[in-house]
Amino acid sequence: MVRDRTGEHLAGWTARDGTGPLARCVGPARGAPVGSGVVSAPTALDPTADVLSLTRALVDAPSVSGSEGPLADAVEAALRALGGLEVERVGDAVLARTGLGLPTRVVLAGHLDTVPIAGNVPSRLDEDAGLLYGCGTSDMKAGDAVMLRLAGRFGVPGARPAHDLTFVFYDNEEVESARNGLGRVARERRGWLYGDLAVLLEPTDGEIEAGCQGTLRARLETTGRRAHSARSWLGVNAVHALAGPLATLAAYRAREVEIDGCRYREGLNAVGISGGVAGNVIPDEAALTVNFRYAPDRDEDAAEAHVREVFAEAIATGATLTVTDNAGGALPGLAEPAAAAFVAAVGRPARAKLGWTDVARFAAFGIPAVNYGPGDPQLAHTRDEHVRVDRLQPAEDALAAYLSGSTA
Amino acid sequence: MVRDRTGEHLAGWTARDGTGPLARCVGPARGAPVGSGVVSAPTALDPTADVLSLTRALVDAPSVSGSEGPLADAVEAALRALGGLEVERVGDAVLARTGLGLPTRVVLAGHLDTVPIAGNVPSRLDEDAGLLYGCGTSDMKAGDAVMLRLAGRFGVPGARPAHDLTFVFYDNEEVESARNGLGRVARERRGWLYGDLAVLLEPTDGEIEAGCQGTLRARLETTGRRAHSARSWLGVNAVHALAGPLATLAAYRAREVEIDGCRYREGLNAVGISGGVAGNVIPDEAALTVNFRYAPDRDEDAAEAHVREVFAEAIATGATLTVTDNAGGALPGLAEPAAAAFVAAVGRPARAKLGWTDVARFAAFGIPAVNYGPGDPQLAHTRDEHVRVDRLQPAEDALAAYLSGSTA
Repeated sequence: MVRDRTGEHLAGWTARDGTGPLARCVGPARGAPVGSGVVSAPTALDPTADVLSLTRALVDAPSVSGSEGPLADAVEAALRALGGLEVERVGDAVLARTGLGLPTRVVLAGHLDTVPIAGNVPSRLDEDAGLLYGCGTSDMKAGDAVMLRLAGRFGVPGARPAHDLTFVFYDNEEVESARNGLGRVARERRGWLYGDLAVLLEPTDGEIEAGCQGTLRARLETTGRRAHSARSWLGVNAVHALAGPLATLAAYRAREVEIDGCRYREGLNAVGISGGVAGNVIPDEAALTVNFRYAPDRDEDAAEAHVREVFAEAIATGATLTVTDNAGGALPGLAEPAAAAFVAAVGRPARAKLGWTDVARFAAFGIPAVNYGPGDPQLAHTRDEHVRVDRLQPAEDALAAYLSGSTA
Repeated sequence: MVRDRTGEHLAGWTARDGTGPLARCVGPARGAPVGSGVVSAPTALDPTADVLSLTRALVDAPSVSGSEGPLADAVEAALRALGGLEVERVGDAVLARTGLGLPTRVVLAGHLDTVPIAGNVPSRLDEDAGLLYGCGTSDMKAGDAVMLRLAGRFGVPGARPAHDLTFVFYDNEEVESARNGLGRVARERRGWLYGDLAVLLEPTDGEIEAGCQGTLRARLETTGRRAHSARSWLGVNAVHALAGPLATLAAYRAREVEIDGCRYREGLNAVGISGGVAGNVIPDEAALTVNFRYAPDRDEDAAEAHVREVFAEAIATGATLTVTDNAGGALPGLAEPAAAAFVAAVGRPARAKLGWTDVARFAAFGIPAVNYGPGDPQLAHTRDEHVRVDRLQPAEDALAAYLSGSTA
């Protein structure tokens, strides 16, 4: 899913992107009885099958993070069979590209892994409601199916896309950042990520989400002097020393900024606080953990400088601030011709992405990147994850039109 | 030791009374090499032996909380052998009293248990420095030895003390309050605690410490609404809601009050703070734990009312305050004739006791109670615990003079 870079999976919990309550992917799916299909690695994926059938085939091949191998094998075989693509395997990531010598290149990327299955595989089609249920339907095997369809159309000998194309199917997006397959490709096969525009087919409900905000975490630590609480005046209370920083946070006015027509909204918040030795001891240590979400017009250094400025008074009086994590955001880059053409092809305005997402891995190489996919981000990681069937074909059509050089 | 009622032993740590750093009683004693004596339960304790020999005999009989049995047996046998005392055993507490029909009665009390031994038993006498080293020397086997000496003097047929006397040797003072032997005696043999004055021979460095302050712990909990930190404005941050209460604590001016010439000093402090769900989630719960130490002119209800008043604004805006522990203090009661006579006999002014102590168990029955003993409270629970030999005889003499009706 379009997700947070770090901290998302603390204590086995996975948060939806956005604002919904946390949902744990265990136990039977609610409202989504298990279907009767067979769960197995597909022996063959057929990129010429319709996008719904392809989505089902992908969902019915379990690929929880760390066990994407069999599905990656099937994807690799299908891409090689097309005959018009250079294919390379990097761990459980599968890379494929055309080499037509066109002046522009578009990268399409999607992860193959899912969060742990919650009794919701194999898939179940509710034909009356027009919904396909199953783990990974929205996040993001529907997007992977669209990618395979586009590979089947433009990755064959004699095809005439308007741009050269690169397909990146990768592993381990749903776990900690260090294992992320796209990050591994960026380190080991950087040249494969080159392009004029990158489109990640993460669930966006058919909207274009551009760029992303950065995220910084810092720990503000105060110190004091321990004492028995019956003689508290002999000590210095480190918890009381957090009064100022908390008042600062409570009064903080977050900035809003518009870039390329996308409105970013920052936030600086306490996400944790701790202190205390025992019920009768004046604490000599306390810590406040803050998370700063910042618009992509600030880089990592500017973000840290801002946080240090916000807590300048506490720092001047002895508190220490340590940045524990800082991942810069990504500018939307919609002024770039390839990106502008994509927005025109989809026919809807781009909106700002507020969470941190894998588009930042492309932005780090100066490549404009957007999220655009058929899934519903609100359903990602939930027990009754599903995708609207009527969103699949329009997503494929819009991308096909753009890649053909026409308008949808 | 004169100690806190609750919370003192969290996580296996024991704090000195007062303001010193915490010291854990494990590992070899520093600066106090182990002596060469034999560690065992004494087969007999001789109350006519000198107070130093008696102290050594008591220290050399290990009696860590929960294993006081053999030492209690020896104390019981010694008291019964005196012939002038009614003796009763209640668990590992030993009770003994005269029954001379005198108009006033004085209770002398001391605990038999010690904190865990830290390689400092048996005792070691440094004759040059005049110090006796060993676990329990100060806290409080020196006091127990003085009690045994006084029993040997006034608990024999034909003795003529100025007051009837009650001796209470009890168990489990160094562990959680629920196990406290004096508390058990108060519940099961309340009549045994009756008296006009109670003297606890806890280490006070030869000073009289009168009454004690009360202690209240409360948990102030704030709530909010959980949200992804990338869209923090959709949530309500429960940690930020602690800004007001912390500012209140930081600005709090503690009251000082003089009662019977003893100066009490209150304190209201954060002793713990917690909150946080994950690094990318706006916390919907946070909690601040406070400890209020209050002078004995407030009772428990008045103390709680004060704390609720202090946090009235936070409570009015949705925070909840729960009192988790509240133990009233003890008035010094020095205006009572028996107490005034004791102060005159010792010849030093009484000072306020700021921590909560077992004297409150007597105060609960309206009995004036003081701490007065030969040990050094700063050494209690430390690896190099010791007692000054030249403090032993003066403590015995002062008490003997008072109990004889003369002035020391």
